[in-house]
Amino acid sequence: MQYNLKDFTEIIEGGLAGIEYTDNAPRLFAPVRYTLEGGGKRLRPCLVLATYAALSGREPAEALNQALAVEVFHNFTLLHDDVMDNADVRRGRPTAHLKWNANAAILSGDAMLTLATQLLAKCPADRLAALLDMFNRTAMEIYEGQQLDMEFETRSDVTVGEYIKMIALKTSVLLGCACALGAIMAEASEADVKAMYEYGYGMGLSFQLRDDWLDTFGDPEVFGKKIGGDILNRKKTWLLITAAEESDGELADILREDLEDEELISQVRRVYTRLKVGDRCNELAKRYAAEAASHLKTVAMPQAASDFFLSLAEKSYTRTH
Amino acid sequence: MQYNLKDFTEIIEGGLAGIEYTDNAPRLFAPVRYTLEGGGKRLRPCLVLATYAALSGREPAEALNQALAVEVFHNFTLLHDDVMDNADVRRGRPTAHLKWNANAAILSGDAMLTLATQLLAKCPADRLAALLDMFNRTAMEIYEGQQLDMEFETRSDVTVGEYIKMIALKTSVLLGCACALGAIMAEASEADVKAMYEYGYGMGLSFQLRDDWLDTFGDPEVFGKKIGGDILNRKKTWLLITAAEESDGELADILREDLEDEELISQVRRVYTRLKVGDRCNELAKRYAAEAASHLKTVAMPQAASDFFLSLAEKSYTRTH
Repeated sequence: MQYNLKDFTEIIEGGLAGIEYTDNAPRLFAPVRYTLEGGGKRLRPCLVLATYAALSGREPAEALNQALAVEVFHNFTLLHDDVMDNADVRRGRPTAHLKWNANAAILSGDAMLTLATQLLAKCPADRLAALLDMFNRTAMEIYEGQQLDMEFETRSDVTVGEYIKMIALKTSVLLGCACALGAIMAEASEADVKAMYEYGYGMGLSFQLRDDWLDTFGDPEVFGKKIGGDILNRKKTWLLITAAEESDGELADILREDLEDEELISQVRRVYTRLKVGDRCNELAKRYAAEAASHLKTVAMPQAASDFFLSLAEKSYTRTH
Repeated sequence: MQYNLKDFTEIIEGGLAGIEYTDNAPRLFAPVRYTLEGGGKRLRPCLVLATYAALSGREPAEALNQALAVEVFHNFTLLHDDVMDNADVRRGRPTAHLKWNANAAILSGDAMLTLATQLLAKCPADRLAALLDMFNRTAMEIYEGQQLDMEFETRSDVTVGEYIKMIALKTSVLLGCACALGAIMAEASEADVKAMYEYGYGMGLSFQLRDDWLDTFGDPEVFGKKIGGDILNRKKTWLLITAAEESDGELADILREDLEDEELISQVRRVYTRLKVGDRCNELAKRYAAEAASHLKTVAMPQAASDFFLSLAEKSYTRTH
């Protein structure tokens, strides 16, 4: 059994393309297809497949429906988040609410949440309750994370601890959930389900912190999108919150000025560099990845699987896109 | 065992008040509470309790979580529909997106859909798959109904058949689902689950047609809201579609004119009255209610239960509010 993202991703893409939609109102599903065809890393569903294969020794595709459930759910949250954030672009294409309208994006998003639950439920009856409990608990946490994220926009006193809690809720829990769903499908012990959840959760924190770093310090050619968007939006990332706490008002002054975009990015990056917040952000991501990896040791799995999960954890804080 | 709406409603209100919310982002749930406290008939959850009691002979409150699931789901659809329709008032109070904002209404609605699924899943393990399947299938149909409803706004060729299909999807299936969930909880036979579904479904059609009638011909004092809203919105109800088909262009001409509100309502009602579409709408509702009631005969239940369901079916087309 090979463990690599390319193979897993192919299974996912095939599964997404094969989803069957009801036909009373076909236009309801046009934004659903559009959103699901938008690509993305497919990291979450790959985690479901990999964890299932690693812990059961069986074919990863046996957990395909649960993997699709996670991916459909994730895309539902992006669809609704884009409406709430009034975002124009997602994965290099117009967002669904621009291509259609906000109503279409809201209603099709609702349909995606129900579709995700339907896919999840395509499982042996003895695993349904545990899968559903994990999935729903995670979904609720993700809404809480989005709520906090929106509240942070209008607050000036967000702490680093609050920020970590927000990204944990908004991002990390779904990576943890993906691993846990794969483990539950594999009939793993409670301890193994929990360990795999912790692995995904820690990796999610690392992944998100690296995302913040890339948005400010990434190579636009490799990262695939403009650098500095978070700075221009005054988004309260780990970098900004930390630098604001340590720069004695300097960062706040810069953010208050009415600077040209490039000048603003450049001045903020200068403060970040002086305070080394970029490097420290990466170090923190690395620590979370190491913490994530430590949970793998307690779970019996083939060497190839363990290597795969360890390499993903390493990528979470070293990736360039 | 007494079967009456008042007792069932009390159980529901107690259950709604006792729902426990997670606490990472309390503001997420303020619109949820507000929406659930808004009252309404609680007809759908009462159908869950009544069907459960009638078919199991046990205490209705044993199916409380499934009843709450249906009510929370129903209120989630109202919350999102109100955003999509940009509605100002719901049950005599400002809509949630006015009281907060559209983003809060979208995100809190999402949380309600997940909450509904969580409540539904609080059941004996052997019934979970069937409950979830019925619930999710119904949810998808309701989104399809809302999609059609929105599409109808910009179409001038909607037929009566299409209208009936739309209200079936948007309204009737949830009344059918409510009865079916109660029956599944009661471990009823497949035939009984189906019969109770058909009962609720037919009653839903009757209920909605009467709603259209009340909006135009109701007594505002008793109905509790302004009369003629559908006419002012040119809403394609059974009345309007039928009268448009039969009035030889007269109705279309009136609707095209730039009349004062009261004059428009009065002229449209005159056409309706001449064509007797009001009476025929009620007759059609009565036929659907009779069809609904016919399914009860095939299901063994106590006389008190049967009387209760029959009286509800009668009310669906005779009610004045």
